[in-house]
Amino acid sequence: MAVLRSQVRRGAYYDSVVLMQLQRGLLALPGVLDAGAVMATPANLELLEASGLRTGDSAGPDDLLIVVRAETDDAAEGALAAVDGLLARRRATADAEFRPKSLEAAVRQLPEASWVLVSVPGRFAAGVARDALRLGKNVFLYSDNVSLEDEIALKHEASRLGLLVMGPDCGTAIIGGVGFGFANRVRRGPIGLVAASGTGLQAVTSAIHELGGGVSQAIGTGGRDLHDEVGGATALEGLDVLRRDPATRVIVVVSKPPEPEVVARITAAARRAAKPVVFDLIGEPVGGAALGNLHFASSLYRAAELAVDLARAETTPSEDAADGAPRYLRALFSGGTLAYEAVLALQHVLHPLRTNVPLRASQRLEDPLHSVGHTVVDLGADQFTVGRLHPMIDNDLRLRRLRQEAADPATGVVLLDVVLGEGAHPDPASELAPAIAEAVRRKDLAVLAVVVGTDEDPQDRAAQIERLRAAGARVATRLDEALDAALRLLPAADVPWPQPVPLEVFARPAAINVGLEVFYASVVAQGASALHVDWRPPAGGDERLMGILRKMKATREGSGAAGRSPEE
Amino acid sequence: MAVLRSQVRRGAYYDSVVLMQLQRGLLALPGVLDAGAVMATPANLELLEASGLRTGDSAGPDDLLIVVRAETDDAAEGALAAVDGLLARRRATADAEFRPKSLEAAVRQLPEASWVLVSVPGRFAAGVARDALRLGKNVFLYSDNVSLEDEIALKHEASRLGLLVMGPDCGTAIIGGVGFGFANRVRRGPIGLVAASGTGLQAVTSAIHELGGGVSQAIGTGGRDLHDEVGGATALEGLDVLRRDPATRVIVVVSKPPEPEVVARITAAARRAAKPVVFDLIGEPVGGAALGNLHFASSLYRAAELAVDLARAETTPSEDAADGAPRYLRALFSGGTLAYEAVLALQHVLHPLRTNVPLRASQRLEDPLHSVGHTVVDLGADQFTVGRLHPMIDNDLRLRRLRQEAADPATGVVLLDVVLGEGAHPDPASELAPAIAEAVRRKDLAVLAVVVGTDEDPQDRAAQIERLRAAGARVATRLDEALDAALRLLPAADVPWPQPVPLEVFARPAAINVGLEVFYASVVAQGASALHVDWRPPAGGDERLMGILRKMKATREGSGAAGRSPEE
Repeated sequence: MAVLRSQVRRGAYYDSVVLMQLQRGLLALPGVLDAGAVMATPANLELLEASGLRTGDSAGPDDLLIVVRAETDDAAEGALAAVDGLLARRRATADAEFRPKSLEAAVRQLPEASWVLVSVPGRFAAGVARDALRLGKNVFLYSDNVSLEDEIALKHEASRLGLLVMGPDCGTAIIGGVGFGFANRVRRGPIGLVAASGTGLQAVTSAIHELGGGVSQAIGTGGRDLHDEVGGATALEGLDVLRRDPATRVIVVVSKPPEPEVVARITAAARRAAKPVVFDLIGEPVGGAALGNLHFASSLYRAAELAVDLARAETTPSEDAADGAPRYLRALFSGGTLAYEAVLALQHVLHPLRTNVPLRASQRLEDPLHSVGHTVVDLGADQFTVGRLHPMIDNDLRLRRLRQEAADPATGVVLLDVVLGEGAHPDPASELAPAIAEAVRRKDLAVLAVVVGTDEDPQDRAAQIERLRAAGARVATRLDEALDAALRLLPAADVPWPQPVPLEVFARPAAINVGLEVFYASVVAQGASALHVDWRPPAGGDERLMGILRKMKATREGSGAAGRSPEE
Repeated sequence: MAVLRSQVRRGAYYDSVVLMQLQRGLLALPGVLDAGAVMATPANLELLEASGLRTGDSAGPDDLLIVVRAETDDAAEGALAAVDGLLARRRATADAEFRPKSLEAAVRQLPEASWVLVSVPGRFAAGVARDALRLGKNVFLYSDNVSLEDEIALKHEASRLGLLVMGPDCGTAIIGGVGFGFANRVRRGPIGLVAASGTGLQAVTSAIHELGGGVSQAIGTGGRDLHDEVGGATALEGLDVLRRDPATRVIVVVSKPPEPEVVARITAAARRAAKPVVFDLIGEPVGGAALGNLHFASSLYRAAELAVDLARAETTPSEDAADGAPRYLRALFSGGTLAYEAVLALQHVLHPLRTNVPLRASQRLEDPLHSVGHTVVDLGADQFTVGRLHPMIDNDLRLRRLRQEAADPATGVVLLDVVLGEGAHPDPASELAPAIAEAVRRKDLAVLAVVVGTDEDPQDRAAQIERLRAAGARVATRLDEALDAALRLLPAADVPWPQPVPLEVFARPAAINVGLEVFYASVVAQGASALHVDWRPPAGGDERLMGILRKMKATREGSGAAGRSPEE
């Protein structure tokens, strides 16, 4: 029968590579059936349980718990006795060459480094990143389990200094052709990426390479960057870099479903980027359309395809959104599903968008009879059709609403659908055209009509289109084309660009690595200059002592003394 | 100065065409500036207000309110005095030819009619539809403002009888080449549609025609059909018709975002349809992938394109989902975004799906260490990485989980990602292959691996793939392809097909129209046999009298007397 033996080491810091190698070392010992060497967090304790390695030890998240299952008592005891030796073996390898013991020392040794890669455990990571910013370095922050407050403070500080903080929990980046963290080797080329998504960025860059395209820069932001509290700080900095970078011709933005307000800021900025921008808002419903220079993909692979196609296109699409005072879209639909699809396509770009066919509660138009800002109305909704013909038959309601919108100086574009076919009004253009002609007498107002129907419909589609055009409407026969045309006529919100990060930072980089040695090794393997810091947690990882050190440092800084990291 | 005059006619029923024509008649009178003639619902009163036509009259939803704004008192009084004449003029036109006064009489006159088109006001519509079912007729129910309870009862009754109820609020259908309600004239062809969306169906059928394709049948369901309470009753009947119809080679299903449980029933049925099925779940986030015979589009136009492409393809894709006892997918990801995209793509097809990266709350996996049914796990989530290397570097966690899943007889397919590149494990296949080989010794278990990376990555992608294949894994390099492969290995849930609606019903139809005359005229214009019922509401639309009539009828039916409609 197998026996289970365990050991707890309290309050000590161990690198996770060390723990992995300890576990493997234990497993290789004679008579050992299974082994675990983990920090005793609740999740890790459950994982031990699942492997039949749970013991009765009382141990907390700061304690190292080592468990061995062996064939005999002797084998188990022998394994635990070997722990010190296994830990020492590891340390000896890591110390084989001379390495700086602090970030400051590393910066003196490799002053040309503009990047610091941080992958120390989460509770130490913000401190290291803060030191890096203080030393004027940009940060690639791989570590996860960093608090939101720390993220906000770090990014705020970075923006102020014109530096970039990618992360926390930023798994990947490709800067000047060199991959940081987990990164695929891809051709260099004209596609620049910003991503609040690690494997998302890896999957898209890999697919771009497979499709024959290439990558200029791939900037990670960490998965929370587009949350409300962080406000897309890094994404905006990244977008700004890519729009200024002459080597970037197409931009891709990848994000998990984020705060609508933040997406609206990013898309507004993207409209002013003067380059095509492909969005993959993962898990967010989007229409299939291109809107001005913005393109929306519904999968990572599709985002890559779109970007490669756009980069290959001979001409950069005319991109710049109209400038000027805010003016609003007023879309007056008779077709409910068309109204819905308009909301779907526009919601991330025209913000806030109000409608009586909302996709989310915040879009609800309080009073469907009065537009507020950008508004999409389905005039065929139940509330409008009691004792009244559907607006596909009776245009009265829409004609009145068209006049009402035209009388509002905030209205910039009126969009109407004209649905032809059996059962519908026999000649809608005859009623709509005079009202359109009257509306467009206001020179700053455009009327767009999307005509849905076929060349066999009884209304004579060509004649309907001709009549609407003669009255001054722009006419499309596909909703996506009409929405694209509408967007091009509306000014983008004026989101200020952040303090610019200099483009030199994105040339072939030199980097200082603090944390997982594997990331240092990979930068070196890619032929870039790098230095690995032989990092140890302040106060040996003891939380109480760390608190005292932090206070001492704060006092020193408060009294004007030069800031020095506690590790020195 | 303009004067406003009004008139209220209490409790009387007026056809909405009559009201439109009354309003137009008033507007044409000398000195009249504007006019309204509406049932005094709250929405209509607000609309009058918006046009400056609101008066102080007390009037309710069953009352007709006529308002005139005129240049002078005389003109206003004159207009109101003309109302009776205008109403009478209309009636004379409608009565120009002989018409049956009841549905029963119409059925005797046109016995070959298999359809009844109902477009009377909402509060009368369910009664007419019920009569039609009782007479063995299928129903196209255009009317809106019909209660959910009535919809459920009507569809339940129809399913029992092998009849179809399209609607309520079904704006459009094309049956045997003849459009009902609002319908575009389109080429006949191999694409059959079911839609819980009126203009959605119009837009897709029009686009199919524009793209050179053609339509076999287009079946509307009404917008609420895929809600929980209705359960997709009509959509399932429609899907069943199209799968049996030899003229239909590709099926398109369009719906506004519906209840996940109901979508799961429809997609499960679609997997058994043995034909390609294109879904446009409007407003619902979907992945870009094809899953077996199911295809997901993110816009109406894209749905049309996909359907036309599929109909043109030489070979019908091998479609049939595996049969047999329920077996589950267990997807173990190291890449968080890949896990997310898997949930996105699979959520409408594998139901219920549990995950630690949920898109909606109901998908949350209570205990991420134990799979339940179909499960997608991101093993790189924060909770797993405290004091532990990311699973892209350390495979230990995934190897243990792989063994755990393989030991569960409910597991049918295990899906793993293998992310290559800088920073990642230098040879993941060396560790994964032995565990995979052990897992696939269970003959009813398949292991799929999706390898993300490029041919330039340091791990040698080709060698990695070869090693995984040699161990018995099926390998893809795109997530969508891996998901497609996984789905083909999993049996579809066994949704029973409803009582079949005979295919003869979908040959060139004859129809009886009750309600808006324009729909009768359009069926006739399309060359089909039709009859228009000169319908009047029971008891002249008086709610109290109608209640008494309903009770009398119920008594008669309860005592076994033949059911007769109250209009007779």
